[in-house]
Amino acid sequence: MLLCDIGNTSYHFNEGTKDFKEFADSFEPQTIKQPTYYISVNQNVKEKLNDLDNWIDLETFVEREDYYATMGIDRIVALATITDAVVIDAGSAITVDVVRNGVFEGGFIYPGIKAMQECYRNISNALDYSFNFEVDLGKMAKNSPDAISYGYLKPFVDEIKSKNLPIILTGGDASEFKKLFPDARLDQELIFTGMKKIMKKAGLC
Amino acid sequence: MLLCDIGNTSYHFNEGTKDFKEFADSFEPQTIKQPTYYISVNQNVKEKLNDLDNWIDLETFVEREDYYATMGIDRIVALATITDAVVIDAGSAITVDVVRNGVFEGGFIYPGIKAMQECYRNISNALDYSFNFEVDLGKMAKNSPDAISYGYLKPFVDEIKSKNLPIILTGGDASEFKKLFPDARLDQELIFTGMKKIMKKAGLC
Repeated sequence: MLLCDIGNTSYHFNEGTKDFKEFADSFEPQTIKQPTYYISVNQNVKEKLNDLDNWIDLETFVEREDYYATMGIDRIVALATITDAVVIDAGSAITVDVVRNGVFEGGFIYPGIKAMQECYRNISNALDYSFNFEVDLGKMAKNSPDAISYGYLKPFVDEIKSKNLPIILTGGDASEFKKLFPDARLDQELIFTGMKKIMKKAGLC
Repeated sequence: MLLCDIGNTSYHFNEGTKDFKEFADSFEPQTIKQPTYYISVNQNVKEKLNDLDNWIDLETFVEREDYYATMGIDRIVALATITDAVVIDAGSAITVDVVRNGVFEGGFIYPGIKAMQECYRNISNALDYSFNFEVDLGKMAKNSPDAISYGYLKPFVDEIKSKNLPIILTGGDASEFKKLFPDARLDQELIFTGMKKIMKKAGLC
């Protein structure tokens, strides 16, 4: 069974224990002949896939009413198997979603590492530093690189911790954030687990 | 007595109750003939002023050792009259500095409104919203504009409040942030008050 999570930059495929990526811009989906269950936040790719019968959009089987209209389908699917957790998807944007007792409480969006670094650099060359994920967040900064790292990370970390829930990390930068949340569960399969649950519910597998 | 605080975009003059600005790129400082006490984070302007005898750089009278090497002179001067406060200077960057019992504890740097908005927009057009400073930070977001506003503002606000100190707001966007910190003191003269204190200490006035 081939599953695919399509983002703005890549197709992320999963087939049992096999896991691989293709670039969204250059990959030709018609080269795949087997039935492929997908979700896509990428509108361009979505339109292309409309014409291919073996690509089945799982979004049509998702109950959206528990969430909100403009919420990315990837966030919704990632939450499908969660009953109590803060889910952090650390990609180009960082989406944070809170589920408590099986109910979606809401979430927020924070800039991803690359975007935030660029943001500081755009303000001034004097703020052009990489973030230090090992900075001591227990005390305020007394040099510029720490002042940037503290500014980006400390308020975010405290906000997450204030939810008092288990933390699940997924997405390309998950392992960086694991340094800040050592007890968090790192789960790069979260979205595929969610997709399988939705397929089961819909009688597709 | 003419004072001037020079930033990356403007010369900010103060003369008693008079207050005016000139663009850093186009203003010609040699048109000022009277003695002018200034600080500057703008290196280009600083070099220009070196040749003008009536422009006196107050940075040379500042005791830097209580702070840190790369800390902007404007931040240091703004703190000169503070004994207990969190000082938020909301400009293109937002600098936050904490002084407790007259001792500088450290600070951090957070992106300003314009920079952060651009940051979200650069990640995706789907995140191109203005921040809502009246968003209810008491509950997590259930729509995209609130998810952005919450992400930018909620962690920041909690971080500031966690210091348990009076809050002083200054800088171009101070009045926006006043909505989030209704008890804060808004003080657009903070830096000039600091400059005067340094001048008194140095016997310049």
